[in-house]
Amino acid sequence: MSKHRIAVIAGDGIGQEVMPEGLRVLEAAASRFNIELQFDHFDFSSCDYFERHGKMLPDDWKDQIGGHEAIYFGAVGWPDKVPDHISLWGSLLLFRREFDQYVNIRPAKLMPGVTAPVVRRDGSPRLAGEIDMVIVRENTEGEYSSIGGRMYPGTEREIVVQETVMSRIGVDRVLRYAFEVARSRPKKHLTSATKSNGIAITMPYWDERVAEMAKQYPDVRVDKFHIDILTAHFVQRPDFFDVVVGSNLFGDILSDLGPACTGTIGIAPSANLNPDRTHPSLFEPVHGSAPDIAGRQIANPIGQIWCGAMMLDFLGHRAAHDAVMQAIESVLSPGSGAPRTPDLGGSAQTSDVGKAIEQAL
Amino acid sequence: MSKHRIAVIAGDGIGQEVMPEGLRVLEAAASRFNIELQFDHFDFSSCDYFERHGKMLPDDWKDQIGGHEAIYFGAVGWPDKVPDHISLWGSLLLFRREFDQYVNIRPAKLMPGVTAPVVRRDGSPRLAGEIDMVIVRENTEGEYSSIGGRMYPGTEREIVVQETVMSRIGVDRVLRYAFEVARSRPKKHLTSATKSNGIAITMPYWDERVAEMAKQYPDVRVDKFHIDILTAHFVQRPDFFDVVVGSNLFGDILSDLGPACTGTIGIAPSANLNPDRTHPSLFEPVHGSAPDIAGRQIANPIGQIWCGAMMLDFLGHRAAHDAVMQAIESVLSPGSGAPRTPDLGGSAQTSDVGKAIEQAL
Ligand SMILES: CC(C)[C@H](C(=O)O)[C@@H](O)C(=O)O
Ligand SMILES: CC(C)[C@H](C(=O)O)[C@@H](O)C(=O)O
Repeated sequence: MSKHRIAVIAGDGIGQEVMPEGLRVLEAAASRFNIELQFDHFDFSSCDYFERHGKMLPDDWKDQIGGHEAIYFGAVGWPDKVPDHISLWGSLLLFRREFDQYVNIRPAKLMPGVTAPVVRRDGSPRLAGEIDMVIVRENTEGEYSSIGGRMYPGTEREIVVQETVMSRIGVDRVLRYAFEVARSRPKKHLTSATKSNGIAITMPYWDERVAEMAKQYPDVRVDKFHIDILTAHFVQRPDFFDVVVGSNLFGDILSDLGPACTGTIGIAPSANLNPDRTHPSLFEPVHGSAPDIAGRQIANPIGQIWCGAMMLDFLGHRAAHDAVMQAIESVLSPGSGAPRTPDLGGSAQTSDVGKAIEQAL
Repeated sequence: MSKHRIAVIAGDGIGQEVMPEGLRVLEAAASRFNIELQFDHFDFSSCDYFERHGKMLPDDWKDQIGGHEAIYFGAVGWPDKVPDHISLWGSLLLFRREFDQYVNIRPAKLMPGVTAPVVRRDGSPRLAGEIDMVIVRENTEGEYSSIGGRMYPGTEREIVVQETVMSRIGVDRVLRYAFEVARSRPKKHLTSATKSNGIAITMPYWDERVAEMAKQYPDVRVDKFHIDILTAHFVQRPDFFDVVVGSNLFGDILSDLGPACTGTIGIAPSANLNPDRTHPSLFEPVHGSAPDIAGRQIANPIGQIWCGAMMLDFLGHRAAHDAVMQAIESVLSPGSGAPRTPDLGGSAQTSDVGKAIEQAL
């Protein structure tokens, strides 16, 4: 098997602390499964870089990282240094678009040793595995558009508009991906997030395309819910869901809410995929740079490590993915005696957890 | 005190079943507190009306109901008869706009006798009163716009766009209302829902106006969260929130999610307010027409009754509001032995609950 070239961008805040643990586990997996990984490190796409260079990226960033198969990403954003909409549109959101990473995938799974904040109807706790869903998010268009502007600025008549843009190509390709994911899972159940009763131009179009695509997947059970009541269902009966597909905004919301319901938002992973492999895909933990806890070695590295597992899967190494996931689950298991960071009630350091997972592997 | 003229629209589905209970309790409150209420009933704004007349409303609907102080509303929508975006834009959403009901208010409160599906960090249940928030939603513009359309329909190049529109007038007036609500409550805490890191044209504007308005309310503690992580916080620490203000879409989502977290989505009320009183305000339960359980006398009427309390408050009868709320809470209380509908684990009929609350009053 040929060598995989991975661009490594640790970025801001706790990205710097969790990245070494992610790499540690990837290297262990690579040596156990005989995979050749080449890591090339880059210091751009961080607010520190911005402070030094006045921009988030060098002019030739595409040449530098565009030839890699994947980008292993920590976190970006440090609002006290650079406003979020500048740092993010100048890096992460730009990568998603320029590299056509049109699918964002986030699993929300109730893991052993993690207490879910949502309980069953009778008040009893939900058990590991009882919630197991995958959020598939459109990642390049929709509500995150760059078209719009302001009129009569600074006056009482001020008006600001922003377009939501959905293209048939953009909608269909993410729906197709979501249907394929649903088909590959035992429950074969796909839920579409909509709001066609209120957002009555773009969202009915989304519904139309879902209905059209469903014809090609008669083996997949499809339903749809308006986003408002869907968030309620996530809380009340998260075990109902299997694969959930949403527009850029709805997918963004659901892919934080889902992991929140499983108690894993601090350790959830995310993959920004270019399924056609014309450009690199990007793997990042959901937690972000977390300025409030940065620099203290208390961040939980499991999100970064879990992303690494998703990356191995994407690179064609399913067995290595499964092994890393098993190592994570065994370290999380209540009886394991393994170190836990403060967010999970322990007092271990970031690197203790990384080493424990490396060991378990 | 002069007579209040109320337009009554029961509408579709369970609206027909819960409305009589709402009226029953309002009449009891009126006689106890010596309030004169005149109820005028209308059969339009329902899908049945649409089936008979080919439209949701008669041409002179504004003359018929525009002179009332308030509209007491059941529910509208029956997708098998009329598509939602037609029935809703032809009635409820039209009322909100034409009557300039620019504030939508929904309380999310953990009530006695109701089990919340979200628990504390240690897994223990949350107690009545522990969650007590009010969602204030912009109700006339934003993401629910009527501007947009489709190009290259039916082809591979198809594109659909829809504008989000925010005006300074529209944003400021709902923010001012939200700050006033926050100021009137003991915690004086206002949270703004945003997504300025991703939706980088309209949402930074929203943030700007919040920051500007905050200067006029130095006694109110203000914070903001992006909508994705905010939904996570609703699940993980709902007790943190007091008043939460959001755009039309974000407010819509949060005002279902909030009541879901308190286990009250089936009984939550909602008020569509025109605070300037230039047109009637509208009071409706959150649950909607619920075609799946309609016609079986099992719907819970508490949402409709709770709305009635909000209407009494709006009409200036705070004591009557408080009395109805106390009656609701006493009937919900675990030890009360009062009838409960199936959604709360009982087997009572809709009217049993209405009568019990009338009695308690
Ligand atoms: C029915 C629908 C159009 C409506 C909305 O989205 O405003 C409803 O969800 C609500 O919150 O009142
Ligand atoms: C940081 C922000 C722009 C981003 C998004 O909204 O896409 C984040 O929330 C995510 O989900 O990756």
